Amino acid sequence: MTVQEALKQLTELEKTRHAYEHAIGLIYCDAVTAAPEDSGRGRGETLGTLSGLSYEVFANPQVGGLLAFLREHSGELTPLQNRQVEMLNREYERISKVPQAEYVQYAQLLNEADTVWHRAKRDNDFPSFAPCLKQIVETQRRFAGYFDPARDPYDVSLDEYERGLDQAQLDRFFSALREKLAPLVHRIQAEGAPVDDSFLHQEFPIAQQRALSDYLMELMTIDRSHCSIGETEHPFTTNFNKYDVRITTKYHLDDMTNSLFSVVHEGGHALYELHTGDELMNTCLAGGATMGIHESQSRLFENMIGRSEAFVERIFPKLLELFPEQLKGVTPRQFYRAINKCEPSLIRIEADELTYPLHIMVRYDIEKLLFAGEISIDELPRIWAEKMKEYLGVEVPDDRRGVLQDSHWSGGSLGYFPSYAIGSAYAAQIVDAMSRDLDVPALVREGNLAPIVEWLTQRIYQYGKAKDPDELLRIATGKSFDPTYYTDYLTRKYSAIYNLK
Amino acid sequence: MTVQEALKQLTELEKTRHAYEHAIGLIYCDAVTAAPEDSGRGRGETLGTLSGLSYEVFANPQVGGLLAFLREHSGELTPLQNRQVEMLNREYERISKVPQAEYVQYAQLLNEADTVWHRAKRDNDFPSFAPCLKQIVETQRRFAGYFDPARDPYDVSLDEYERGLDQAQLDRFFSALREKLAPLVHRIQAEGAPVDDSFLHQEFPIAQQRALSDYLMELMTIDRSHCSIGETEHPFTTNFNKYDVRITTKYHLDDMTNSLFSVVHEGGHALYELHTGDELMNTCLAGGATMGIHESQSRLFENMIGRSEAFVERIFPKLLELFPEQLKGVTPRQFYRAINKCEPSLIRIEADELTYPLHIMVRYDIEKLLFAGEISIDELPRIWAEKMKEYLGVEVPDDRRGVLQDSHWSGGSLGYFPSYAIGSAYAAQIVDAMSRDLDVPALVREGNLAPIVEWLTQRIYQYGKAKDPDELLRIATGKSFDPTYYTDYLTRKYSAIYNLK
Repeated sequence: MTVQEALKQLTELEKTRHAYEHAIGLIYCDAVTAAPEDSGRGRGETLGTLSGLSYEVFANPQVGGLLAFLREHSGELTPLQNRQVEMLNREYERISKVPQAEYVQYAQLLNEADTVWHRAKRDNDFPSFAPCLKQIVETQRRFAGYFDPARDPYDVSLDEYERGLDQAQLDRFFSALREKLAPLVHRIQAEGAPVDDSFLHQEFPIAQQRALSDYLMELMTIDRSHCSIGETEHPFTTNFNKYDVRITTKYHLDDMTNSLFSVVHEGGHALYELHTGDELMNTCLAGGATMGIHESQSRLFENMIGRSEAFVERIFPKLLELFPEQLKGVTPRQFYRAINKCEPSLIRIEADELTYPLHIMVRYDIEKLLFAGEISIDELPRIWAEKMKEYLGVEVPDDRRGVLQDSHWSGGSLGYFPSYAIGSAYAAQIVDAMSRDLDVPALVREGNLAPIVEWLTQRIYQYGKAKDPDELLRIATGKSFDPTYYTDYLTRKYSAIYNLK
Repeated sequence: MTVQEALKQLTELEKTRHAYEHAIGLIYCDAVTAAPEDSGRGRGETLGTLSGLSYEVFANPQVGGLLAFLREHSGELTPLQNRQVEMLNREYERISKVPQAEYVQYAQLLNEADTVWHRAKRDNDFPSFAPCLKQIVETQRRFAGYFDPARDPYDVSLDEYERGLDQAQLDRFFSALREKLAPLVHRIQAEGAPVDDSFLHQEFPIAQQRALSDYLMELMTIDRSHCSIGETEHPFTTNFNKYDVRITTKYHLDDMTNSLFSVVHEGGHALYELHTGDELMNTCLAGGATMGIHESQSRLFENMIGRSEAFVERIFPKLLELFPEQLKGVTPRQFYRAINKCEPSLIRIEADELTYPLHIMVRYDIEKLLFAGEISIDELPRIWAEKMKEYLGVEVPDDRRGVLQDSHWSGGSLGYFPSYAIGSAYAAQIVDAMSRDLDVPALVREGNLAPIVEWLTQRIYQYGKAKDPDELLRIATGKSFDPTYYTDYLTRKYSAIYNLK
């Protein structure tokens, strides 16, 4: 076999894998946007079959041989080809360790779990979801054992979403956050100037909220011919290639800021995907680098831009046009303070920026306990309530607003949550660096977000998975990860909002 | 190999084929409902790859051998298994005659054609679509030559949608229609009592039209947990299995009857799929028998039920509730006459029931000419206009409202249109038989459509593809196909509406 022949086989392999991923990804996306509610069984059978076929294509000795051959000839490959081989090999090492039957069974389990979780959440019925979740946790722990039997299984899961991340680092990160943020929250509660957000709790017609989504996507320079918006229970972004990106949102009649920030958040994910390099298409290097880096981009737009005073000033005329009655007499400053009101609450995705990481800590603690086998699934509602009380001081009235609120666990994404907090911290560091080159608030106030997107494209977006998080942070900021930017940013922002001395 | 082993292989084959069909079907469905507009390229690559993989699974000598083995042992199979083998063999005979590269290329062509047609229709730009259509017609003619070189290629295409149908029969059918219906249309124009439908041309808010769709689906007893509704340019129904059915509609702000009858039409298709036998699932016998039989069910609900006076009486209170201003002072009788106004017009899907078959004849004539190679693609707009003038007496102002109006040709469905007219004729014959068992107007007036659905389930729906059209008609009506029921029905209905002597 020549290197040329091997590369041709590699392209063919990537093409086939991509086609299966596209089909499977669309089936999942459709399941939570357009599919009839009770259509999970047939979908599960199809997902099982396609997952099995996709597994067969990849997890077989020919692929192992091909990858070994290409690694031996790395000197004849371009850096991008070497990266591609390295990433595929990493995945091959993992996937080929999972028996095919278990792999297929797990795909079916996740499809079923999605339906079960949706119903359980609607009916506030945790026990109906518990057996599913139990199987998911057991499978993930077993898979972690296949991947790297010497390592702590939760570390294996964390590494899957954020290369290099482990519990030791996260323990340090979260304890740094706690040290800085807990006193800040207490000072706000004790001496902060009150924030009135009562005008946010009115009726906001869905048709107008849909028009607001269109406006926001345009403001963010999102190319609608390559990015559509759908509606779902738990908003997400997905893409099948860089020219076919989907964001989703959920409209709440009594709270238009929910969808507003959902669209800006998912829009940040979408911008990343839309601007990855063309040369990465149809390879395993297409798409965002890691979950942490992806979340840094969504949270950069949602919080550092979307919840800034400049952004509020920009969009306020549009808000007044769409909701003239509801916002009568409200000033941009009042609106800005209202959307940043610090108030410990029950729902993660509705939490303010400051208490948000505390919601993540609850989930992180629970995932650690689950992976360590120190608690049983049945205890989750109780432990959830205890942790929420401890970190946020709130009482959990039901599981719908407690342990059942997120889709991540039913989707098998254990180990994902920490990347939200890590992502926010990355974002603060990136915005600090961006601010040396650009007058970010001025651009936002002008409604000129293109230079911001371009800055991010040059330093982050274009590389897709071709670089690891630490390298991307170094390119963008000149430094390794440093959570101080995040705690400083939050302290500065919230001290100003609450007039803290 | 034992028969048991062969049957196990058959099940495995059907499962894999079904998974590919599910994925490919969803990709097409998503393309015209939720996908961003300019996402065709990546979708085309995936469809190409999946079509190739699906082709490899089916069109290979092992499958040929398996089917031959099972045919030799037909005495040991159940009637359903024999039918399954027979249908698969029929398809195997066809598909294995098409070279894989051409099969894949055609799937990609159709995906591209869909995007090109959408744009061409929007921009009223037939020349931009012509090269695509030319390739589609050429491919279909070439494929027909592979399938059955001795036969007229258009007959081969017709037979694909309606087993047994050919041009000789259709020529007779359409000439019978022309003989009865042309004088009827002329009499209406000359001496019919005028029909006022001006109140239908007002503004009908989309939100209310969406609520009407929900009401209609409930009235039709459509199980929403297994059937969702989406929005698209050219409404269609699709299903991935009997528990996952999708209908679509398009809302026109200035005409609520457009979506109303679209929902009832697609709802008819959906009822059929939802009530096919469970034992047919995951086999090639699942789903409607033929396009003609499928259209008979959609048109039975759209026209014989939906455009009946009883149906109008049933839904009128709901219409008044949703559109009180627009329908102020309108009586159910006036509404009934308005939705049945006979008026030769440009758009097939907006045509009244009586002039509708004339639209089909235009397309049938053109398809015959195209397959015979007697006209070129570039001449289509001119010939379309001439035929519309001849059959309907209308002038075609532009291609958007002419040759570009339908999605069928861009979807490769040449030979499909006649099944709409045949379906209407089947429907009239079926309703005649149903009326011997049930008081259809009384049930409709009561809003009790369940007995009608049950009657159809027993005689048509449950059999899926297990029986051919003629056998289904015999079961349902006791007779072979006879178009007289259709012409009699139209004559009776329209004479009454227009007070013809």
